[in-house]
Amino acid sequence: MLARTIRVTFDFGACEHAPYDEGSDMEYGLPKGFRFAGVHCGIKTNPNNTDLTLVVSDVAAVASGVYTQNLVFAAPVAVDRTRTPSDAIRAIVVNSGNANACTGERGLEDARRMAELASAVCSAPPEAGLVMSTGIIGVFLPMEKIEKGIASAAGRLGADADSFDAAARGILTTDTAAKVSARALTIGGKEVRIVGMAKGAAMIGPNMATMLGLILTDATLAKEDAQAVLGSAVDDSFNCISVEGHTSTNDTVLLLANSRSETAPLGGDDLAAFAAAIAEVCQELAKSIPADGEGATHLITIKVNGAAGRDEAFEIAKTVANSVLVKTAVTGADPNWGRIVSAAGYAGVPFDPAKVNLQVNGIPLYEGGSPLQFDAEAASKSIAASRDTLIELQFGEGGGRARFWTTDLTAEYIRLNADYHT
Amino acid sequence: MLARTIRVTFDFGACEHAPYDEGSDMEYGLPKGFRFAGVHCGIKTNPNNTDLTLVVSDVAAVASGVYTQNLVFAAPVAVDRTRTPSDAIRAIVVNSGNANACTGERGLEDARRMAELASAVCSAPPEAGLVMSTGIIGVFLPMEKIEKGIASAAGRLGADADSFDAAARGILTTDTAAKVSARALTIGGKEVRIVGMAKGAAMIGPNMATMLGLILTDATLAKEDAQAVLGSAVDDSFNCISVEGHTSTNDTVLLLANSRSETAPLGGDDLAAFAAAIAEVCQELAKSIPADGEGATHLITIKVNGAAGRDEAFEIAKTVANSVLVKTAVTGADPNWGRIVSAAGYAGVPFDPAKVNLQVNGIPLYEGGSPLQFDAEAASKSIAASRDTLIELQFGEGGGRARFWTTDLTAEYIRLNADYHT
Repeated sequence: MLARTIRVTFDFGACEHAPYDEGSDMEYGLPKGFRFAGVHCGIKTNPNNTDLTLVVSDVAAVASGVYTQNLVFAAPVAVDRTRTPSDAIRAIVVNSGNANACTGERGLEDARRMAELASAVCSAPPEAGLVMSTGIIGVFLPMEKIEKGIASAAGRLGADADSFDAAARGILTTDTAAKVSARALTIGGKEVRIVGMAKGAAMIGPNMATMLGLILTDATLAKEDAQAVLGSAVDDSFNCISVEGHTSTNDTVLLLANSRSETAPLGGDDLAAFAAAIAEVCQELAKSIPADGEGATHLITIKVNGAAGRDEAFEIAKTVANSVLVKTAVTGADPNWGRIVSAAGYAGVPFDPAKVNLQVNGIPLYEGGSPLQFDAEAASKSIAASRDTLIELQFGEGGGRARFWTTDLTAEYIRLNADYHT
Repeated sequence: MLARTIRVTFDFGACEHAPYDEGSDMEYGLPKGFRFAGVHCGIKTNPNNTDLTLVVSDVAAVASGVYTQNLVFAAPVAVDRTRTPSDAIRAIVVNSGNANACTGERGLEDARRMAELASAVCSAPPEAGLVMSTGIIGVFLPMEKIEKGIASAAGRLGADADSFDAAARGILTTDTAAKVSARALTIGGKEVRIVGMAKGAAMIGPNMATMLGLILTDATLAKEDAQAVLGSAVDDSFNCISVEGHTSTNDTVLLLANSRSETAPLGGDDLAAFAAAIAEVCQELAKSIPADGEGATHLITIKVNGAAGRDEAFEIAKTVANSVLVKTAVTGADPNWGRIVSAAGYAGVPFDPAKVNLQVNGIPLYEGGSPLQFDAEAASKSIAASRDTLIELQFGEGGGRARFWTTDLTAEYIRLNADYHT
């Protein structure tokens, strides 16, 4: 049962990693049995930017992974895919600044070597390591720097908030803030803790729009359950966001569960409560990615109800989210029902147009297939006044629901994405 | 047999409707038996902007149509769909400035009334008329203005170049230039002429990204052949362009063939030659739409070869064309192979990434799954130096080929699409 939920709140605009800058040792505890480090090893040129993160578990952990569906995928994805689900993972190493993508056989060797060096920190076999990379593509990893970085990180591993903070920063590329989330549950009298970190979809330079997520828990889980819980949580979170609709070569979300909470293996209601908490962590992390989008002025939430099924609702929400015309209308604070309804109409999902209703920020704009009379100026002001825009579409087909998050599209985004190399 | 091809050449950047500004009576003749008019009836506020076009055939014509696949479609689409293919069409009326979309039952009545008024000009029955509309949506047509406009156009019908020119301008919305194309063939000693006009995908204001096309020929065709020829031509032209990936409520391409060339009904090689000419006209018109895109600085052609089949090639080309990241890379003159190859990778089409080659403007960037060493500065200069960018992707799957045209994405586009209502 979900006993208490500690919500990490932070303002993406104002601070880099708020929950850890408070001076206190955090309101929630980190999951037991993990140690963290983040260091600068020289992949990024600025010595103030951490570019290598190491996470180790004191005992063998159950691990599950969800990976990019892109046919062109990076070496670390190729390596991790063969190793998850697992019940014998001890270490995860992440580097930022270089994605190790489109690097052929040598890239694969480098990814395996990274994982091996990380697991060696715990004197574990090579296959006990997992690896993630993000950054430029088509360039070989600077393995000497990475080897030294792993050694340096090994010497700094800690179970305190500062160490976790450094680890959360080590995976970032152009993100303007660290992205973290946490939950805690009491199960069978024991506290079970979950913490997650993510990096976003920023695309400046030749970087891919890579999303990385790492969820750590001291729960006791069967590896099949770990895979099912993560897969379901990612479907409703990381798979429901887009900044520009691009799927990266490196997208990866990993879950490690090391059983150090010392509960019995989770099942039944306990497993359901745990899965709900994992889903919340994933959604909080996922939403923080478009919220931190390049040049974005709005985080847009698209809710679809009444579609024939979940897949249909998802396709409609995603199509509206990826419409350049919908995004630019929000940028311009325009309650443009036509762009939204017609984007739904080309989602490739059958529905009766005469049963479509639309609200933007709670204001009804369109009902039963026709636009309503509404106060356009008030609707525009409600978009302009808030960083959050809510688009709600109802259909008359069934019980299918979905939610999708995206950003608006600004001239500043274009500037960042077109002029980065000059 | 294709005896001669007269190519209409015009510079979209420099002039509004070049082929007709030459002072001469055109290099090619208009198809026999059609008369044209374009007038200002007051839908658009500026009295210099024509907003109503009327085309009549002196005899009953075979007509075929291809329409938007959007589930939310406008009243004129609903009307025309029930009337094509046909062998009894006499008149087509088009208005710009108001799309008659999302206007319910009254919109349908208005669309039928427009077609009826147009066919009445030739004393033909109501069903002998077709109708197209483009412009703002969700607003009822100003039927009084339209009725007067049709009457005024009826009085100005002409078979000369100036009348055709006025008709080609009457269908435009935010296009900066009229879009026309023509071909002529000699079949059985008779000249068969084809002329086409189109309007583009401009999206300023609450307009939809509507594409309209109207192809007129004096060929003698069976109505089934007319439908097959148009469907195939549209598949390889109007369905292979996008400016922002949006499918409008009003997209329509109509073909009228009135048999006034007085050849026998086309079949065999003659029909194939005619179909090829129609395809060329459609491609020329279709390409002119992204070429005239809002704020665009590049017309991007994506060629895919070696895919498993045509559908697979088309999906890949379309996915690359709709990638905001590919578009902004071209804006910034960046030969960003990573964005292109990874966009192909998420097209949802299986292929072997190790058999992918890529050239941009003829410069090889990527081969056999890995980036090549190339002169990045020279590649960038080749993009910056030309308004045309050619992206060529080869796969090792089969003989599937496709071509797609799109524009880059500029800060000016965002400004136009976000700030139009302020």
